[in-house]
Amino acid sequence: MKTILVVGIGTGSPDHMTMAAIEALNRADVLFVPDKGANKADLADIRRTIIARFVTGAPRQIGYAVPRRDAANPDYGQGVDDWHDALGRIFGDLIAQVPDSGAGAFLVWGDPGLYDSTLRILERVDTPIRVEVIPGITAIQALTAAHGIALNRIGEPVLITTGRQLGSVETDTIVMLDGRLAFQEADPDLQIFWGAYLGTPDQLLIAGRLGDVAEDIVATRTEARARHGWIMDTYLLRKAQ
Amino acid sequence: MKTILVVGIGTGSPDHMTMAAIEALNRADVLFVPDKGANKADLADIRRTIIARFVTGAPRQIGYAVPRRDAANPDYGQGVDDWHDALGRIFGDLIAQVPDSGAGAFLVWGDPGLYDSTLRILERVDTPIRVEVIPGITAIQALTAAHGIALNRIGEPVLITTGRQLGSVETDTIVMLDGRLAFQEADPDLQIFWGAYLGTPDQLLIAGRLGDVAEDIVATRTEARARHGWIMDTYLLRKAQ
Ligand SMILES: C[S@@+](CC[C@H](N)C(=O)[O-])C[C@H]1O[C@@H](n2cnc3c(N)ncnc32)[C@H](O)[C@@H]1O
Ligand SMILES: C[S@@+](CC[C@H](N)C(=O)[O-])C[C@H]1O[C@@H](n2cnc3c(N)ncnc32)[C@H](O)[C@@H]1O
Repeated sequence: MKTILVVGIGTGSPDHMTMAAIEALNRADVLFVPDKGANKADLADIRRTIIARFVTGAPRQIGYAVPRRDAANPDYGQGVDDWHDALGRIFGDLIAQVPDSGAGAFLVWGDPGLYDSTLRILERVDTPIRVEVIPGITAIQALTAAHGIALNRIGEPVLITTGRQLGSVETDTIVMLDGRLAFQEADPDLQIFWGAYLGTPDQLLIAGRLGDVAEDIVATRTEARARHGWIMDTYLLRKAQ
Repeated sequence: MKTILVVGIGTGSPDHMTMAAIEALNRADVLFVPDKGANKADLADIRRTIIARFVTGAPRQIGYAVPRRDAANPDYGQGVDDWHDALGRIFGDLIAQVPDSGAGAFLVWGDPGLYDSTLRILERVDTPIRVEVIPGITAIQALTAAHGIALNRIGEPVLITTGRQLGSVETDTIVMLDGRLAFQEADPDLQIFWGAYLGTPDQLLIAGRLGDVAEDIVATRTEARARHGWIMDTYLLRKAQ
């Protein structure tokens, strides 16, 4: 059987790479490298830097184009489903190029378990494969480390959610995948710890009372996004103590 | 000013160590190594293995005894507060042994932001210090990687909580710090993904419908805990799809 290594590479810094991730990339016969399109060239660069710095052998590298999800589909679930189907076919073709009993590796941003579809897409592949997951540093750990704060209050829960799902903040909340700046509608008395391009030399951090810093975050984000052509940001919202 | 490096070392496997964590341990003039008492000797062993394998220089190692939290204090908050005060004094003494403008490093289990008090205790130290946090692989990532599953459903939130705080499970929920096996009171139709000693050679995994596997988890946990003298386990609860 072929082994598919789903390798968490961390969220921006090559120094997020774990020993296990380095070992896995070196064990692979083939590395699958997504081509995310011109805008996210910086992300492709980070993957290339990781391979150049940590892969000592010469595994074959196979690039692949990532199709776009049809964001215009009014049925979000159906849109994702169609997109995963298309990716499942692409993954099937990629895996066909792994030698028998060999290993292929996907380099996954952050941790493969957190808001990432690689594992779900692999379930759609017809070929029998053994999947091995290598955990990675997530944007959540990168955010709290950069701010030098604990994620949770002593013994208290934390909710991880998306911009789309953010409601009234009762529990300390991490927001990811927030294209619509959902924090703007939250209680201005909350504390926010915001970070973008975490782990990279372009890392941006803003923290404070939401009402005091929200405008600054919006302006900083808009400017940075225009300059880079893309942005990845995340934040923690919590009640002041 | 002295630098205190708060270094996430992952949750059981030395291979969870990141490049940044290795760099930080090697940058330190002094490593602070907690002595957790006889029962958790395995944990002290993992720390020693990490130092032996990844630290190439010969920084000074200073061991320190971790006082016990007074679990008998009926006021949980006050008990934690007293305990942090005692640890704050110990940390102050440790930091006094770091050379001026030098660096000392704490090796923190998992990620320093997740249910860990090191950062909060450092806030109680009187000496002015610069704190630098190195993110680490958490037990959450170790759990989902070992089970080969995603933490979240597509675009859905996840709650991280403790055994003490576990209520009715509406959102997919990670439970940590659960000494009282709180899953036993949860809806038997939930799915559970349970793991103990994650990342170590003793790793245990059980998954299934809660009602079908709860007894097996309790028995496995009791037996393993008696054999090791300690246990660390965590689990994901979610509604069946
Ligand atoms: C598709 S999810 C992937 C998350 C990833 N698997 C992880 O473990 O962090 C992408 C979201 O993660 C967050 N993110 C990822 N990398 C980030 C970074 N370097 N800085 C800030 N946020 C980041 C953003 O919220 C972004 O919308
Ligand atoms: C005090 S918290 C520390 C968490 C740690 N900072 C992290 O990032 O995972 C200890 C709890 O983490 C979980 N845990 C830590 N290491 C674990 C392991 N190797 N296997 C299973 N659970 C673990 C357990 O729920 C345990 O009660």
